[in-house]
Amino acid sequence: MKRTSFGTARCPVARSLDEIGDWWTLLIVRDALRGSTRFSDFETGLGLAKNILSARLRKMVADGILQTRPSPDRADRHEYHLTEKGRGLHMVLVALRQWSEANLFTQGEPITRMRDKRTGAPPRRLVLHAADNTPLAPEDITFRMEKFAADPHG
Amino acid sequence: MKRTSFGTARCPVARSLDEIGDWWTLLIVRDALRGSTRFSDFETGLGLAKNILSARLRKMVADGILQTRPSPDRADRHEYHLTEKGRGLHMVLVALRQWSEANLFTQGEPITRMRDKRTGAPPRRLVLHAADNTPLAPEDITFRMEKFAADPHG
Repeated sequence: MKRTSFGTARCPVARSLDEIGDWWTLLIVRDALRGSTRFSDFETGLGLAKNILSARLRKMVADGILQTRPSPDRADRHEYHLTEKGRGLHMVLVALRQWSEANLFTQGEPITRMRDKRTGAPPRRLVLHAADNTPLAPEDITFRMEKFAADPHG
Repeated sequence: MKRTSFGTARCPVARSLDEIGDWWTLLIVRDALRGSTRFSDFETGLGLAKNILSARLRKMVADGILQTRPSPDRADRHEYHLTEKGRGLHMVLVALRQWSEANLFTQGEPITRMRDKRTGAPPRRLVLHAADNTPLAPEDITFRMEKFAADPHG
Protein backbone atom coordinates (compact mmCIF):
# COMPACT_ATOMS: atom_id res chain seq x y z
CA MET A 1 0.00 0.00 0.00
CA LYS A 2 2.96 2.30 0.47
CA ARG A 3 3.34 4.73 -2.40
CA THR A 4 6.04 7.00 -1.03
CA SER A 5 9.45 6.30 0.42
CA PHE A 6 10.10 8.01 3.73
CA GLY A 7 13.58 6.50 4.06
CA THR A 8 15.22 9.91 3.89
CA ALA A 9 12.42 11.86 5.60
CA ARG A 10 13.47 14.53 8.08
CA CYS A 11 10.60 13.47 10.29
CA PRO A 12 11.73 10.56 12.45
CA VAL A 13 8.20 9.15 12.60
CA ALA A 14 7.98 8.91 8.82
CA ARG A 15 11.47 7.44 8.61
CA SER A 16 10.69 4.81 11.24
CA LEU A 17 7.55 3.75 9.37
CA ASP A 18 9.60 3.32 6.23
CA GLU A 19 12.12 1.12 8.03
CA ILE A 20 9.48 -0.98 9.76
CA GLY A 21 7.63 -1.56 6.49
CA ASP A 22 4.53 -3.63 6.99
CA TRP A 23 3.07 -4.73 10.30
CA TRP A 24 4.73 -8.14 10.25
CA THR A 25 7.98 -6.58 11.42
CA LEU A 26 6.39 -5.49 14.69
CA LEU A 27 4.69 -8.85 15.21
CA ILE A 28 7.99 -10.65 14.60
CA VAL A 29 9.71 -8.36 17.13
CA ARG A 30 6.85 -9.06 19.55
CA ASP A 31 7.41 -12.81 19.24
CA ALA A 32 11.21 -12.46 19.42
CA LEU A 33 10.87 -10.47 22.67
CA ARG A 34 8.87 -13.39 24.07
CA GLY A 35 11.54 -15.90 23.15
CA SER A 36 10.92 -17.02 19.57
CA THR A 37 14.21 -17.69 17.82
CA ARG A 38 13.56 -20.37 15.19
CA PHE A 39 11.91 -19.97 11.82
CA SER A 40 9.30 -22.50 12.92
CA ASP A 41 8.57 -20.49 16.13
CA PHE A 42 7.72 -17.42 14.08
CA GLU A 43 5.80 -19.45 11.53
CA THR A 44 3.61 -20.99 14.24
CA GLY A 45 3.15 -17.73 16.14
CA LEU A 46 2.21 -15.65 13.12
CA GLY A 47 0.51 -18.08 10.75
CA LEU A 48 2.46 -16.49 7.93
CA ALA A 49 3.38 -18.16 4.62
CA LYS A 50 6.96 -19.47 4.60
CA ASN A 51 8.06 -17.34 1.65
CA ILE A 52 6.71 -14.11 3.13
CA LEU A 53 8.16 -14.85 6.56
CA SER A 54 11.48 -15.73 5.00
CA ALA A 55 11.65 -12.46 3.02
CA ARG A 56 10.62 -10.47 6.06
CA LEU A 57 13.26 -12.07 8.33
CA ARG A 58 15.92 -11.49 5.67
CA LYS A 59 15.03 -7.79 5.46
CA MET A 60 15.09 -7.48 9.26
CA VAL A 61 18.57 -9.01 9.34
CA ALA A 62 19.70 -6.62 6.56
CA ASP A 63 18.25 -3.69 8.54
CA GLY A 64 20.07 -4.74 11.71
CA ILE A 65 16.89 -5.47 13.68
CA LEU A 66 17.64 -9.20 13.90
CA GLN A 67 20.90 -11.09 13.75
CA THR A 68 21.41 -14.73 12.92
CA ARG A 69 23.35 -17.17 15.09
CA PRO A 70 24.09 -20.85 14.47
CA SER A 71 21.50 -23.10 16.07
CA PRO A 72 22.90 -24.97 19.11
CA ASP A 73 21.06 -28.17 18.05
CA ARG A 74 21.40 -28.27 14.31
CA ALA A 75 24.54 -27.07 12.58
CA ASP A 76 22.67 -26.56 9.29
CA ARG A 77 20.20 -24.13 10.86
CA HIS A 78 20.36 -20.73 12.42
CA GLU A 79 18.39 -18.78 14.95
CA TYR A 80 17.18 -15.20 14.91
CA HIS A 81 17.99 -12.90 17.80
CA LEU A 82 17.09 -9.26 18.34
CA THR A 83 19.87 -6.72 18.14
CA GLU A 84 19.84 -3.70 20.46
CA LYS A 85 18.15 -1.79 17.64
CA GLY A 86 15.47 -4.49 17.45
CA ARG A 87 14.98 -4.55 21.22
CA GLY A 88 14.43 -0.78 21.02
CA LEU A 89 11.11 -1.46 19.32
CA HIS A 90 9.78 -2.78 22.64
CA MET A 91 8.56 0.68 23.56
CA VAL A 92 6.62 0.95 20.27
CA LEU A 93 4.91 -2.37 21.07
CA VAL A 94 4.09 -1.23 24.61
CA ALA A 95 2.58 2.02 23.30
CA LEU A 96 0.46 0.13 20.73
CA ARG A 97 -0.61 -2.39 23.36
CA GLN A 98 -1.67 0.26 25.88
CA TRP A 99 -3.57 2.24 23.27
CA SER A 100 -5.30 -0.93 22.15
CA GLU A 101 -6.20 -1.91 25.74
CA ALA A 102 -7.65 1.55 26.33
CA ASN A 103 -9.69 1.65 23.13
CA LEU A 104 -10.26 -1.61 21.33
CA PHE A 105 -11.41 -4.16 23.92
CA THR A 106 -14.75 -4.57 25.61
CA GLN A 107 -15.36 -5.86 29.11
CA GLY A 108 -14.93 -9.63 29.39
CA GLU A 109 -13.25 -10.23 26.02
CA PRO A 110 -10.28 -12.63 26.02
CA ILE A 111 -7.03 -10.66 25.90
CA THR A 112 -3.33 -11.32 26.35
CA ARG A 113 -2.22 -8.93 29.06
CA MET A 114 1.22 -7.67 29.98
CA ARG A 115 2.11 -8.21 33.63
CA ASP A 116 5.05 -7.47 35.90
CA LYS A 117 6.76 -10.87 36.30
CA ARG A 118 7.58 -10.28 39.99
CA THR A 119 4.19 -9.04 41.17
CA GLY A 120 1.65 -9.92 38.47
CA ALA A 121 0.53 -6.29 38.51
CA PRO A 122 -0.03 -4.29 35.30
CA PRO A 123 2.75 -1.86 34.39
CA ARG A 124 1.95 1.86 34.46
CA ARG A 125 0.76 3.69 31.37
CA LEU A 126 3.59 5.33 29.44
CA VAL A 127 3.97 9.03 30.05
CA LEU A 128 6.28 11.44 28.24
CA HIS A 129 8.35 13.43 30.72
CA ALA A 130 10.34 16.64 30.40
CA ALA A 131 13.99 16.74 31.49
CA ASP A 132 12.73 17.96 34.91
CA ASN A 133 10.19 15.07 35.04
CA THR A 134 7.09 17.17 34.37
CA PRO A 135 4.61 15.11 32.31
CA LEU A 136 4.30 16.48 28.78
CA ALA A 137 1.02 16.50 26.82
CA PRO A 138 1.03 16.93 23.03
CA GLU A 139 0.33 20.66 23.59
CA ASP A 140 3.53 21.01 25.63
CA ILE A 141 5.69 19.93 22.70
CA THR A 142 7.12 21.92 19.84
CA PHE A 143 9.14 20.83 16.81
CA ARG A 144 12.36 22.30 15.49
CA MET A 145 14.36 21.56 12.39
CA GLU A 146 17.92 20.83 13.49
CA LYS A 147 21.03 19.02 12.46
CA PHE A 148 20.98 15.63 14.14
CA ALA A 149 23.10 15.11 17.24
CA ALA A 150 22.57 12.32 19.77
CA ASP A 151 20.46 13.54 22.68
CA PRO A 152 21.87 13.94 26.17
CA HIS A 153 18.92 11.82 27.37
CA GLY A 154 19.27 9.35 24.50
CA MET B 1 0.06 -6.03 1.96
CA LYS B 2 -2.11 -7.21 4.83
CA ARG B 3 -3.32 -10.76 4.31
CA THR B 4 -4.84 -11.44 7.69
CA SER B 5 -7.36 -9.58 9.79
CA PHE B 6 -6.30 -9.03 13.39
CA GLY B 7 -9.48 -7.13 14.26
CA THR B 8 -10.56 -9.78 16.74
CA ALA B 9 -7.07 -10.83 17.85
CA ARG B 10 -6.56 -11.48 21.55
CA CYS B 11 -3.20 -9.77 21.32
CA PRO B 12 -3.70 -6.03 21.72
CA VAL B 13 -0.67 -5.29 19.54
CA ALA B 14 -2.11 -7.24 16.61
CA ARG B 15 -5.53 -5.67 17.12
CA SER B 16 -4.07 -2.15 17.19
CA LEU B 17 -2.20 -2.77 13.93
CA ASP B 18 -5.43 -3.91 12.33
CA GLU B 19 -7.24 -0.75 13.44
CA ILE B 20 -4.42 1.57 12.37
CA GLY B 21 -4.23 -0.06 8.94
CA ASP B 22 -1.53 1.48 6.79
CA TRP B 23 1.02 4.05 7.92
CA TRP B 24 -0.97 7.03 6.68
CA THR B 25 -3.15 6.86 9.77
CA LEU B 26 -0.20 7.58 12.04
CA LEU B 27 1.08 10.38 9.81
CA ILE B 28 -2.39 11.97 9.76
CA VAL B 29 -2.53 11.76 13.58
CA ARG B 30 0.96 13.28 13.71
CA ASP B 31 -0.20 16.25 11.62
CA ALA B 32 -3.47 16.60 13.55
CA LEU B 33 -1.51 16.76 16.83
CA ARG B 34 0.48 19.64 15.35
CA GLY B 35 -2.68 21.54 14.42
CA SER B 36 -3.78 20.37 10.98
CA THR B 37 -7.58 20.40 10.76
CA ARG B 38 -8.47 21.01 7.10
CA PHE B 39 -8.37 18.58 4.23
CA SER B 40 -5.91 20.90 2.50
CA ASP B 41 -3.62 20.96 5.58
CA PHE B 42 -3.30 17.17 5.48
CA GLU B 43 -2.95 17.15 1.72
CA THR B 44 -0.06 19.62 1.86
CA GLY B 45 1.60 17.96 4.83
CA LEU B 46 1.46 14.43 3.45
CA GLY B 47 1.63 14.88 -0.33
CA LEU B 48 -1.08 12.25 -0.59
CA ALA B 49 -3.54 11.90 -3.49
CA LYS B 50 -6.95 13.44 -2.72
CA ASN B 51 -8.88 10.20 -3.15
CA ILE B 52 -6.58 8.20 -0.87
CA LEU B 53 -6.54 10.93 1.76
CA SER B 54 -10.29 11.23 1.58
CA ALA B 55 -10.82 7.48 2.07
CA ARG B 56 -8.34 7.40 4.91
CA LEU B 57 -9.96 10.35 6.74
CA ARG B 58 -13.38 8.76 6.31
CA LYS B 59 -12.16 5.50 7.85
CA MET B 60 -10.55 7.37 10.75
CA VAL B 61 -13.86 9.15 11.43
CA ALA B 62 -15.71 5.81 11.27
CA ASP B 63 -13.17 4.31 13.70
CA GLY B 64 -13.59 7.20 16.15
CA ILE B 65 -10.01 8.47 15.79
CA LEU B 66 -11.10 11.73 14.16
CA GLN B 67 -14.37 13.64 14.40
CA THR B 68 -15.69 16.24 11.97
CA ARG B 69 -16.84 19.72 12.98
CA PRO B 70 -18.27 22.47 10.77
CA SER B 71 -15.58 24.86 9.58
CA PRO B 72 -15.83 28.28 11.29
CA ASP B 73 -15.06 30.05 7.96
CA ARG B 74 -16.96 28.06 5.38
CA ALA B 75 -20.35 26.57 6.17
CA ASP B 76 -19.99 24.03 3.32
CA ARG B 77 -16.77 22.60 4.74
CA HIS B 78 -15.78 20.73 7.81
CA GLU B 79 -12.66 20.27 9.88
CA TYR B 80 -11.10 17.14 11.33
CA HIS B 81 -10.29 16.99 15.02
CA LEU B 82 -8.76 14.20 17.06
CA THR B 83 -10.98 12.38 19.52
CA GLU B 84 -9.53 11.22 22.86
CA LYS B 85 -8.95 7.86 21.21
CA GLY B 86 -7.01 9.58 18.42
CA ARG B 87 -4.99 11.67 20.87
CA GLY B 88 -4.07 8.41 22.59
CA LEU B 89 -1.90 7.54 19.60
CA HIS B 90 0.50 10.30 20.66
CA MET B 91 2.48 7.80 22.73
CA VAL B 92 2.86 5.48 19.72
CA LEU B 93 4.26 8.39 17.71
CA VAL B 94 6.65 9.33 20.51
CA ALA B 95 7.91 5.74 20.76
CA LEU B 96 8.45 5.54 16.98
CA ARG B 97 10.17 8.93 16.99
CA GLN B 98 12.56 8.04 19.80
CA TRP B 99 13.43 4.69 18.25
CA SER B 100 14.06 6.42 14.95
CA GLU B 101 16.25 9.10 16.57
CA ALA B 102 18.29 6.42 18.31
CA ASN B 103 18.77 4.25 15.22
CA LEU B 104 18.05 5.84 11.86
CA PHE B 105 19.83 9.20 11.79
CA THR B 106 23.47 10.03 11.35
CA GLN B 107 25.32 12.96 12.86
CA GLY B 108 24.53 16.27 11.14
CA GLU B 109 21.52 15.09 9.12
CA PRO B 110 18.53 17.45 9.03
CA ILE B 111 15.84 16.24 11.42
CA THR B 112 12.63 17.55 12.95
CA ARG B 113 13.10 17.26 16.69
CA MET B 114 10.60 17.22 19.51
CA ARG B 115 11.28 19.83 22.17
CA ASP B 116 9.71 20.92 25.44
CA LYS B 117 7.87 24.14 24.54
CA ARG B 118 8.78 25.84 27.85
CA THR B 119 12.49 25.03 27.95
CA GLY B 120 13.50 23.87 24.46
CA ALA B 121 15.01 20.76 26.06
CA PRO B 122 14.46 17.26 24.65
CA PRO B 123 11.91 15.14 26.55
CA ARG B 124 13.17 12.04 28.35
CA ARG B 125 13.19 8.65 26.69
CA LEU B 126 10.06 6.63 27.41
CA VAL B 127 10.49 3.99 30.09
CA LEU B 128 7.99 1.33 31.12
CA HIS B 129 7.45 1.38 34.88
CA ALA B 130 5.98 -1.13 37.28
CA ALA B 131 3.20 -0.09 39.66
CA ASP B 132 5.94 0.66 42.24
CA ASN B 133 7.86 2.74 39.65
CA THR B 134 10.64 0.21 39.03
CA PRO B 135 11.72 0.38 35.37
CA LEU B 136 10.69 -2.76 33.50
CA ALA B 137 12.79 -4.32 30.72
CA PRO B 138 11.25 -6.80 28.27
CA GLU B 139 12.62 -9.63 30.48
CA ASP B 140 10.66 -8.32 33.47
CA ILE B 141 7.34 -8.78 31.68
CA THR B 142 5.11 -11.80 31.38
CA PHE B 143 1.87 -12.33 29.48
CA ARG B 144 -1.37 -13.81 30.74
CA MET B 145 -4.57 -14.66 28.95
CA GLU B 146 -7.39 -12.97 30.84
CA LYS B 147 -10.86 -11.63 30.39
CA PHE B 148 -10.56 -7.94 29.67
CA ALA B 149 -11.23 -5.49 32.48
CA ALA B 150 -10.06 -1.87 32.50
CA ASP B 151 -6.77 -1.52 34.37
CA PRO B 152 -6.47 0.30 37.69
CA HIS B 153 -3.63 2.28 36.10
CA GLY B 154 -5.52 2.81 32.85
